[in-house]
Amino acid sequence: MDYASGLKANPSSIHAEGVKTKIKLQSARKKISGILKARPVEIIFTSGGTESNNLAIQGVVWAWREKIPARNAYSIAIAGGSEKKLPHIITTNIEHPSVLETCRMLKKRKLAEISIVPVEKNGIVDPKKIKKEIKENTALVSVMYANNEIGTIQPIREIAGEIRHYNKNNRQDLFFNRSCLFHTDAVQAANYLDLNVGKLGVDLLSLSGSKIEGAGRVGVLYKKKSAPITAIFGGGDQESGLRPGTENFPEILKFSEALESAQRIKEKETKRLVRLRNHFFNKMRHSHILKNVGMLFNGDLENRLPNNINITFPKIPSDLLVIELSSKGVMASSKSACESSRREGSYVIEAIRPESDPEIGGVRFSLGRETSKADIDYTIGVLSKILLRLKKWK
Amino acid sequence: MDYASGLKANPSSIHAEGVKTKIKLQSARKKISGILKARPVEIIFTSGGTESNNLAIQGVVWAWREKIPARNAYSIAIAGGSEKKLPHIITTNIEHPSVLETCRMLKKRKLAEISIVPVEKNGIVDPKKIKKEIKENTALVSVMYANNEIGTIQPIREIAGEIRHYNKNNRQDLFFNRSCLFHTDAVQAANYLDLNVGKLGVDLLSLSGSKIEGAGRVGVLYKKKSAPITAIFGGGDQESGLRPGTENFPEILKFSEALESAQRIKEKETKRLVRLRNHFFNKMRHSHILKNVGMLFNGDLENRLPNNINITFPKIPSDLLVIELSSKGVMASSKSACESSRREGSYVIEAIRPESDPEIGGVRFSLGRETSKADIDYTIGVLSKILLRLKKWK
Repeated sequence: MDYASGLKANPSSIHAEGVKTKIKLQSARKKISGILKARPVEIIFTSGGTESNNLAIQGVVWAWREKIPARNAYSIAIAGGSEKKLPHIITTNIEHPSVLETCRMLKKRKLAEISIVPVEKNGIVDPKKIKKEIKENTALVSVMYANNEIGTIQPIREIAGEIRHYNKNNRQDLFFNRSCLFHTDAVQAANYLDLNVGKLGVDLLSLSGSKIEGAGRVGVLYKKKSAPITAIFGGGDQESGLRPGTENFPEILKFSEALESAQRIKEKETKRLVRLRNHFFNKMRHSHILKNVGMLFNGDLENRLPNNINITFPKIPSDLLVIELSSKGVMASSKSACESSRREGSYVIEAIRPESDPEIGGVRFSLGRETSKADIDYTIGVLSKILLRLKKWK
Repeated sequence: MDYASGLKANPSSIHAEGVKTKIKLQSARKKISGILKARPVEIIFTSGGTESNNLAIQGVVWAWREKIPARNAYSIAIAGGSEKKLPHIITTNIEHPSVLETCRMLKKRKLAEISIVPVEKNGIVDPKKIKKEIKENTALVSVMYANNEIGTIQPIREIAGEIRHYNKNNRQDLFFNRSCLFHTDAVQAANYLDLNVGKLGVDLLSLSGSKIEGAGRVGVLYKKKSAPITAIFGGGDQESGLRPGTENFPEILKFSEALESAQRIKEKETKRLVRLRNHFFNKMRHSHILKNVGMLFNGDLENRLPNNINITFPKIPSDLLVIELSSKGVMASSKSACESSRREGSYVIEAIRPESDPEIGGVRFSLGRETSKADIDYTIGVLSKILLRLKKWK
């Protein structure tokens, strides 16, 4: 008679309906762990990419602080206040806000020390520069797999190699005998790139249903079994105690099926989108109108997501272009939706074009499963007309 | 052309589709704020009840710590380590794990000091006992509106009165000039009780879609505009910066409609369920078989949710009864689903029956919109047979 207030069974209930739901939940977990070549117990369901990134970063910081008593804030303050003993995080200057702002928040709250490594002009970070920042109290390196604005793919395997090398030489038989962990935000990568966590060499990897067609609004955090993290939320013991709260069962099921289907068509879809993207690039490059206005492609042209195009049009504010394009039915973006209501321009474009006016920014076109060659041609036609008009008006 | 990877528009995007979604999101927010007699800006969407409770409690603690520099961990340690200067939280011993465990986590992490007030034998807390615990550094009182296991309704208005009285007399023109805030976890109350936040006198109130028929898997935190809290997650600036992450738009829409519909039928449904519940009670009381086995109703019989029945059968373990009932198609629970995989018994039953063996616990029957008189009669029939058999077997 317990309808759990008339809803579907709670997978953590011990009655028959609860058990049935739990079995389906476990099979979704198994499906996802199979794709990542991980173990089911290493898959933690969250509410989305933002929470996955927060759980990874804050979780490592709290585990680091709690496990080693000498490292809690009190002892440090009494011992002379050396901030060097706080857990240290290394990240880059083009991470998603859910990574970058989380690191800044932890610094502001005096819970961690952070180093932000700038990417190169092509939007790719140099693994050697990451390596240079690793020190005794580095608890975590967090570098995104692929960027959400300029689509650049980071050298995850190489960075993992540097960290492994450091751990091997510096974290053996020491008093602070804990490895430096490696987290990657793979939210943008899930549709197109290899998600084999062993090959990538990561300890933590974030995924989000928002970026996978047909997936539910849930997130996943892969956490290597040996990697110590603690929960952000206090509450029940769902997800091995690492993520309390009733499991979002129907959405989790959708997520596992959508990820599986995205993996199945990955190679074919990547080829198709690369062709479309190159068609876009080439047509733009040879367009006389655009040559008059001028344009700069953002992000490395080789190591980038197949579905991402990001262009700076010097002297034309990207927000204006996005609104003009929208009026013609073309949905583009000038920066991450997670920072749209902020006044400043895109910090990602600023990172690779520090000389440029922040208002100019870059216009991002994302290609999806429904994007056809006709869409590309239509977009370029519309874009050409708008640019010509705006140029005259200026 | 930006299909946001083929998905529906992101409400934080500035293109036309994004704006349309944002308008619908705002209208859902307005609908919910109308029911709570609050302002739309006071409604924060989260992933569920657990997150709402965490955001309320952790959010108050961090706002308290960050706003007053003299109260951060470093200064305290240097100043002599007086833990008294940490923000202090008062709660009860029968709160949901997402409140109780969050408080314990904050204590363990040396971020807050906590006082846990025990409820009376009838499962209701004495407002005077709450008042007695309030002191100079009390940042928050968190008392649930109605209990998830034994259904007791707490005297929220009276507790609010005590806090208001304390604030008026003690938090004026002091160096620590911040009010003691009041949070209530109203997750179980949403279907049946008055949600007018002004009348209740609360600063923070949590709701969860999981407990409202037809609502999506999202949560809501009402936060009085003047109440200072900070985010748990680092990330984008969604939900006034208090809850970063892409808004779970379709589920939010479902939530607002389901809450509205639950409010519409509230009075009629309450009357119907009270009748059914009393029928259950009376039939049980007059059953000879049950008189032989013995039974104790848990929680105050007057101040309780209309849909909740919780009974202790002395000498018969509640987990065993739940499994036996389940085999006959009756879904009951022995404790909160959020603590089902823990070995211990229900801490809520333990709080009101400290003399009882934890294994015995209590069996909870929840009535819902689909529950009929025939269901009640069937349940009592099944229960009687099971109890008789188990009694013989013992």
